[in-house]
Amino acid sequence: MNPAVVEQLRKIAGRDAVLDRPEDLMLYEYDAGIRKSTPGAVVFPQTTNQVSQIMRLASSAQVPVVARGAGTGLSGGAISREGGIVVAFSRMNRILEIDVENQRAVVQPGVVNLQLSEHVSHLGLYFAPDPSSQKACTIGGNVAENSGGPHTLMYGVTVNHVTGVEVVMPSGEVVHFGGKAAESYGYDMTGFFVGSEGTIGITTAITVKLLRKPEKVATLLAIFETVDDAGQTVSAITAAGITPAALEMLDGWTLRTIEAYCHAGYPLDAGAVLLIELDGLRESVEEHAEAVQAVCLQQKAREVRRAKTEEERALLWKGRKTAFGALGRVSPSYYTQDGVVPRSKIPATLAHIGEVSKKYDLIIGNIFHAGDGNLHPLILFDIRFPDQLERALAASKDILEYCIAVGGSITGEHGVGMEKRDLMPVLFTQEDLDVMAGLRNAFNSENLLNPDKLLPTPRMCREIFGAARNPVLVQEGM
Amino acid sequence: MNPAVVEQLRKIAGRDAVLDRPEDLMLYEYDAGIRKSTPGAVVFPQTTNQVSQIMRLASSAQVPVVARGAGTGLSGGAISREGGIVVAFSRMNRILEIDVENQRAVVQPGVVNLQLSEHVSHLGLYFAPDPSSQKACTIGGNVAENSGGPHTLMYGVTVNHVTGVEVVMPSGEVVHFGGKAAESYGYDMTGFFVGSEGTIGITTAITVKLLRKPEKVATLLAIFETVDDAGQTVSAITAAGITPAALEMLDGWTLRTIEAYCHAGYPLDAGAVLLIELDGLRESVEEHAEAVQAVCLQQKAREVRRAKTEEERALLWKGRKTAFGALGRVSPSYYTQDGVVPRSKIPATLAHIGEVSKKYDLIIGNIFHAGDGNLHPLILFDIRFPDQLERALAASKDILEYCIAVGGSITGEHGVGMEKRDLMPVLFTQEDLDVMAGLRNAFNSENLLNPDKLLPTPRMCREIFGAARNPVLVQEGM
Repeated sequence: MNPAVVEQLRKIAGRDAVLDRPEDLMLYEYDAGIRKSTPGAVVFPQTTNQVSQIMRLASSAQVPVVARGAGTGLSGGAISREGGIVVAFSRMNRILEIDVENQRAVVQPGVVNLQLSEHVSHLGLYFAPDPSSQKACTIGGNVAENSGGPHTLMYGVTVNHVTGVEVVMPSGEVVHFGGKAAESYGYDMTGFFVGSEGTIGITTAITVKLLRKPEKVATLLAIFETVDDAGQTVSAITAAGITPAALEMLDGWTLRTIEAYCHAGYPLDAGAVLLIELDGLRESVEEHAEAVQAVCLQQKAREVRRAKTEEERALLWKGRKTAFGALGRVSPSYYTQDGVVPRSKIPATLAHIGEVSKKYDLIIGNIFHAGDGNLHPLILFDIRFPDQLERALAASKDILEYCIAVGGSITGEHGVGMEKRDLMPVLFTQEDLDVMAGLRNAFNSENLLNPDKLLPTPRMCREIFGAARNPVLVQEGM
Repeated sequence: MNPAVVEQLRKIAGRDAVLDRPEDLMLYEYDAGIRKSTPGAVVFPQTTNQVSQIMRLASSAQVPVVARGAGTGLSGGAISREGGIVVAFSRMNRILEIDVENQRAVVQPGVVNLQLSEHVSHLGLYFAPDPSSQKACTIGGNVAENSGGPHTLMYGVTVNHVTGVEVVMPSGEVVHFGGKAAESYGYDMTGFFVGSEGTIGITTAITVKLLRKPEKVATLLAIFETVDDAGQTVSAITAAGITPAALEMLDGWTLRTIEAYCHAGYPLDAGAVLLIELDGLRESVEEHAEAVQAVCLQQKAREVRRAKTEEERALLWKGRKTAFGALGRVSPSYYTQDGVVPRSKIPATLAHIGEVSKKYDLIIGNIFHAGDGNLHPLILFDIRFPDQLERALAASKDILEYCIAVGGSITGEHGVGMEKRDLMPVLFTQEDLDVMAGLRNAFNSENLLNPDKLLPTPRMCREIFGAARNPVLVQEGM
């Protein structure tokens, strides 16, 4: 990186707030996925104004800018592909306001997801989006990738919990959209920024909903002989008119691997389990729990267990939430995908993943948000062997193409990022992609903001339609 | 309108599908609000391809284009301010697909809201957004304005029920975003088009969620001596951890006017009533109904009635849904506003509206979606007297400015349209508005699509920031 730019960054954020030595930059070259790229410098702003100055500097110096939270993302969103400036938010981690009456919090992007819930727990409130990485991931990252979690089924993804944003645009201008009201007005700018993967602007303050903790929670573990039976049960529960707060599925191989790691009490001989959570008022939860139990048994569940204490409940969830750690013990590398299929296609998709596993000779564990049809196949491989990496990538592509073919999509909650953007043309026509590029180019016309993410690289320099008077040009890939 | 353009329209859509005689155009110069403007021609396309050709024609002839559903909107969204082409969707009113398994319908924009629910009723399904005008309003209009209704409280506004759109852009290109999956990927384009008030493109097909009808519904009428007590109860119900499906409020004057019209059984001597609906599984509804009743009585409700039969339930709702008709009987004109305030500010806002009523010497009825803090003050006046119109407009502005001052906004579900766009600068800075204009201008750069709606007219011709290489110019108001 140009030393003059680094010097400017130090002037803006302070001498101790910029890294540019190779050994320091190494820590910022990866996320929780499998790709790497080394940034030119990392800066740790402490204020919105500093972020604004950094953006102005980057624009004038024509240097890419990538925002980074905790680096727990799975689609490469926080990786700087072109050696630019990484803006790391670990020093902008303050909870700015708690508004109990209106059930809102205003936070800086570096606030860790679970910390917000812990901070308001004594008020009987919590922040609903709960990615598996919630002990580490930041709310800024959740906003960029529109993250979900097990409780997405009932409570929705991050966009359903963000009512306002402060955003620094590529020009350095600071803009504000939304507020504490639940609904937007005019263009839904808040909704547009959430999930835009850092390609339009960088969010520097976020207003989120705080939900009241439910009066009662019931957590069930339904045990099945086969993955197919468990898959059928997912549809049957919804068909019974019940929306659980969470409805997770683990296949036999995955639950055995988890059990060996954390002793959550999962049955070692099962074909699959469903982890089902119900919440709400006491009697309503009891009624739903009984109804769910009946449906599971009807659908050939061998047994349905219910957590009797908060400890038992926490243990069941610990198994689910530490799944990635458990897999790390048995495989040098794994690649997590994030496909979505209609609920009715779950059994067929699981069968297809079984075939993919054989075809590419790789173990694939299945852990997924079954209620949403959001699957996370975990493809095990050893990154030291290039042919294994190649097979893992091919298997992943095969699975995602299958998801698309049955009417699903390529991401439920991890974002498109670097790895899946080349699949975007399978989902969208060139005209559709042009509209998206047109929106991005309205602000990030030079593609300096998180370049080479989300949208595929256009093959040639050409005019985006619909802007006859002021043609906006799509850049040739850099 | 240039006769050559009218002739072209006839070639595109058919000779019987274009109106341009003044006596025919008169029927298309208004909506359910109080403004008027006569279009140059009205065209009734039957296919997406025809809409695309109309858009190309309008672009090349530099004629404004305004989409129109049933004209039931309250913010002027369907009114052509500059004599252009009105594209009326009454002949694109087919339900294209019902997908029972995935609970989706694909509809043309001219499908009437209630017709969709009636069409799928035998399957145990329904379409949740329920504006008071649902017997007449179209789903295309609901999408344009992001409409709500009494059940918005639990089920959200239109954007929460749309998973895919087909849109014709100003260039005539046809694009598709989303599909049947609940969550979007990449930029949330579906969310962006919903509520964009016809200023970015025209929607020609819509994929919507169909919900399962609840097993049980309970409808309560809580009667209060004062508006203040009713307002406090709204917060108390939420504080008890209960989210009713609907939570509506009518003040004493309004409910007496309604009662005289439709005999819904509302008490004539009450200060205010809350109409509260709970739905879900049987026992859960019973539990919630008892809890709500207890809260109401605690908060000084004089009485809480519960509908014992479906007929009684329908009658209670008939009162609410025919409120506008009832008002039409007692006043030559009325002006309905659509402000939003935080729930905690409901009592203070109602007190302020009382003062506004005195100050401007106009009767103001209050009917509102109390659970959302979305108020609909009904300002009565006689449009034949210009000073009354002026006072009605001033009273309306006063109320909306108060909503903004207490942390609310100017629209909950009717859109910004023509009348409220001049208040946008009170809610947004120039930088914020520039970002919105930048998005619009990326496609509708010549402001031909529903011109002079949603965004205020910029005062001068100047550059929008953030597009240094390809400056996008904001047009001087026409």
